[in-house]
Amino acid sequence: MDQVIQKLRQFRDDRDWQQFHNPKDLAAALSIEASELLEVFLWKTPEEADVDRVKEELADVLAYALLLSDSYGFDIQEIILDKIRKNEQKYPVGKAKGSAKKYTEL
Amino acid sequence: MDQVIQKLRQFRDDRDWQQFHNPKDLAAALSIEASELLEVFLWKTPEEADVDRVKEELADVLAYALLLSDSYGFDIQEIILDKIRKNEQKYPVGKAKGSAKKYTEL
Amino acid sequence: MDQVIQKLRQFRDDRDWQQFHNPKDLAAALSIEASELLEVFLWKTPEEADVDRVKEELADVLAYALLLSDSYGFDIQEIILDKIRKNEQKYPVGKAKGSAKKYTEL
Amino acid sequence: MDQVIQKLRQFRDDRDWQQFHNPKDLAAALSIEASELLEVFLWKTPEEADVDRVKEELADVLAYALLLSDSYGFDIQEIILDKIRKNEQKYPVGKAKGSAKKYTEL
Repeated sequence: MDQVIQKLRQFRDDRDWQQFHNPKDLAAALSIEASELLEVFLWKTPEEADVDRVKEELADVLAYALLLSDSYGFDIQEIILDKIRKNEQKYPVGKAKGSAKKYTEL
Repeated sequence: MDQVIQKLRQFRDDRDWQQFHNPKDLAAALSIEASELLEVFLWKTPEEADVDRVKEELADVLAYALLLSDSYGFDIQEIILDKIRKNEQKYPVGKAKGSAKKYTEL
Repeated sequence: MDQVIQKLRQFRDDRDWQQFHNPKDLAAALSIEASELLEVFLWKTPEEADVDRVKEELADVLAYALLLSDSYGFDIQEIILDKIRKNEQKYPVGKAKGSAKKYTEL
Repeated sequence: MDQVIQKLRQFRDDRDWQQFHNPKDLAAALSIEASELLEVFLWKTPEEADVDRVKEELADVLAYALLLSDSYGFDIQEIILDKIRKNEQKYPVGKAKGSAKKYTEL
């Protein structure tokens, strides 16, 4: 993954784009790309969505997520594992099993 | 990263949640988490955002991105590197350097 | 406003689109259009955003908001006034004045 | 509708919030509220969504849409009618009837 992050940094720096990449705009960009990903499914059943477009839009989401993470110096594996541990508290198996409810409603 | 994906699958399966995780709802969940991440910056300068909340919300975004990717059997490093190659065509350095314009406006 | 809603219904029905317009997809469409509106501001100061594009994207947001509201038979003036009353409880002037905090943090 | 906009302005000014309400943050807030609305439908069929929550979240979306519109001095009926006229060009009945495709794919 380090090599991918390195490539993303270089793509950005070759274009002199770091000047635009403050964390607030990176978070906005990530949210916009996540909506473009959702748009691939709009008015469709899950199966009807075009897989190549899903692949490309998901790559854009991941790219901004990695750039935002990198701007804070986070280790993405570590922050995901930390969050899984927190979610195990919020969603104990006994209460959450088979339920789509939010933890605030369990 | 494989170990992280394995943990995410197990967290999901312990709670019997795969029944809810069709790709369309996963894409919606990803978009909703990306908005929660953006909310950490709302009404604030980029520097004022709470770093611990950024960390947690970004982890949620990454978790859904990995689960969606996994549901299609994508390799995330591969799809990001493919997209960087496409973006090099869309945003040639000569035209894009120092510009925040979308490729459709370059 | 009734005349505008009538025009939106007719535009939809002339194209036989009601079959796609279930409330879940309308809510997704609304969220996608709201992201397109946000994209007009991306990497920019608020003043740099193109006013004509803001106008068009905001119109799309409003169109889906009205169609979703109409599908439930809501009166938009009534639901907004109801929500203002609730927000007056959540954000009492004494506590909220001059603060950008969410009610859960006040 | 003018009376509703008047109430929204007063709610904002009683709390001294205009200082936070630049158009970029208003667009971000609108997008965040649209995601909260979408969340009411997450992991559910359209019919399973809680109508009272839809009502409240849609009211929040509309409130920010009206405040953003008001900050530019737009007339919302006029901008929607203008956009319907543009969409009639983008989606001619002959091509668009019964199709969920985007105008770029028609």
